Amino acid sequence: MNTLYIGALDIGGTKIAATVAGCEGPLARITQPTVKTGSPRALGEQVTALLHAACDQAGVERELLQTVGVCSCGPFVKIDGTVGLVTPNICGGLKYSPDLPNDWKIIPLEQVMRESFGKIVIENDCVAALVAERTFGAVQDEPDCIYATWSTGIGFGLCVDGRVLRGKHGNAGHGGHMLMDWQSDAVCGCGNRGDLEALISGRNVGARLGMSAADIFTAARGGDAAAREIAVEAAQWFGRALYNLAAILDTRIFVIGGSVWIHHGEWLAPFVQKEIESRLPALTEGVSIVPAGLEGLVADVGALSLVMPAGWIPEWRKAQPWRDPQPWRKQGA
Amino acid sequence: MNTLYIGALDIGGTKIAATVAGCEGPLARITQPTVKTGSPRALGEQVTALLHAACDQAGVERELLQTVGVCSCGPFVKIDGTVGLVTPNICGGLKYSPDLPNDWKIIPLEQVMRESFGKIVIENDCVAALVAERTFGAVQDEPDCIYATWSTGIGFGLCVDGRVLRGKHGNAGHGGHMLMDWQSDAVCGCGNRGDLEALISGRNVGARLGMSAADIFTAARGGDAAAREIAVEAAQWFGRALYNLAAILDTRIFVIGGSVWIHHGEWLAPFVQKEIESRLPALTEGVSIVPAGLEGLVADVGALSLVMPAGWIPEWRKAQPWRDPQPWRKQGA
Repeated sequence: MNTLYIGALDIGGTKIAATVAGCEGPLARITQPTVKTGSPRALGEQVTALLHAACDQAGVERELLQTVGVCSCGPFVKIDGTVGLVTPNICGGLKYSPDLPNDWKIIPLEQVMRESFGKIVIENDCVAALVAERTFGAVQDEPDCIYATWSTGIGFGLCVDGRVLRGKHGNAGHGGHMLMDWQSDAVCGCGNRGDLEALISGRNVGARLGMSAADIFTAARGGDAAAREIAVEAAQWFGRALYNLAAILDTRIFVIGGSVWIHHGEWLAPFVQKEIESRLPALTEGVSIVPAGLEGLVADVGALSLVMPAGWIPEWRKAQPWRDPQPWRKQGA
Repeated sequence: MNTLYIGALDIGGTKIAATVAGCEGPLARITQPTVKTGSPRALGEQVTALLHAACDQAGVERELLQTVGVCSCGPFVKIDGTVGLVTPNICGGLKYSPDLPNDWKIIPLEQVMRESFGKIVIENDCVAALVAERTFGAVQDEPDCIYATWSTGIGFGLCVDGRVLRGKHGNAGHGGHMLMDWQSDAVCGCGNRGDLEALISGRNVGARLGMSAADIFTAARGGDAAAREIAVEAAQWFGRALYNLAAILDTRIFVIGGSVWIHHGEWLAPFVQKEIESRLPALTEGVSIVPAGLEGLVADVGALSLVMPAGWIPEWRKAQPWRDPQPWRKQGA
């Protein structure tokens, strides 16, 4: 049977979005706050109900929706071959979880979804973003590329030799937790001292001057000396991390998204580029950085891209139906 | 036509080994010092002649040898899709080359070999070692594993989701050049300050007490306090680098070789393991480290493994013909 409809989920710590799409574009999109009470099955049941509600809204028979792509915050763990979430901002029973109204240690997401859907692909949000950028964004069909997000957290999606990397539990790309500065006091949410995220995540950059990261980058660009020092140092750490990944994976191009890069990427890029190209020319020569192409829509488009039939892609590339504000966006308001 | 014979090359900075093997095992092996004079074609011509000489010695018609696996020091660069070497210890025309009797910038290895052979697979020595360990060594058929060598240099071979990573020029795995200690004065052969190889390669560990690295590790195990501090610190840096790779690639197992590990791995392993498992449990839980299985023969077996017909493998796994000292080893003496 031909796939007539596909579903997409964007699962975040605070919000979930469910989309149903046909071969010509998205048909309906519904959002809800992420459930955090009840049994560990609650999230799987919530997203199933939300996808079914999106079907109803789109006028699509629920049974015709069998294929679902999921872009979720991680990390993941495999349970009998199915993907479970061990996400500190949803599961309250983990070592580094904030205060949450549950004691979940693992959310059996794929297991519960399998009761209602035939084909499910679940990827970390940076992996989904990478797939989106390779399918519809700034690095279409590029075999050796890395997606990086610089936002409240730092994460990566990795593609080498034309293949997207998953790893033993689907967690490849957690390079935000690579150790960078052994002398640093900066502590990451994961407990690490001096990892990349501790050094430069939006949260931690802002903390250094008691203002928001956005204000620091804006002040830096306006010429404020203290803010500039912090902003340039952050760009250098980010560049050194990209250099590390270029040396480890022999990549050709970095595609960068996330709120910090969306607003300040143009200003930050030269500092980052310099850190990459000042080392190991055999590996870094010609390595480039480009801004992400899909930004605000990357999670939804990423989740769709994970399961989109190959035959739909040329038409979607031409028509870019995800840009149409109706019905894709109005339901999310 | 069935493949009757395969060739293998181990190309190092000082020595080259050429092997010819049939379905039951190696038939001849010849070594020679690596040529470093003449035109940039000289190395390709040397290895071709050496493979032909190995054919003659094995009584194999030269024309029947069409398939050659090459394990070579890197880095590589692609020239019109063929692999060239830009190896500082052979090419005298590079920025960080030592004093050498040539001004080569690129060695067109594959281009020259293509004039005589039909199928050539050239891999970095750590990638070849990884393939050897996955085919005949300590991590047979393991989908998510990393080979690491700790010797005069540090390098890695990476396998994720059952696929060995190459990268845009075949240089994936140069993680010895990842930046680890920003405050360090230790300088790497590549020019980096504070990268992994600067911190812990055999060369650099030894330099800290003005003795050989071997002596430092031996003294450390004998209870010498100054040596012990250096050795433990080196093990910790190595462990942090493996942690970084585990976080980036979500690997399951590290297989470790190289002269430092062969002699001192048992003593070093607990320090390394502790650095890995003390961080980010979702990614590091259950990650293990094992010693390489093929050690002294890893380059030859690696080069053979790169091109070995799948049908030969079960028999080679059983008979382990590479362990037979005749004729495999006598020619190398």
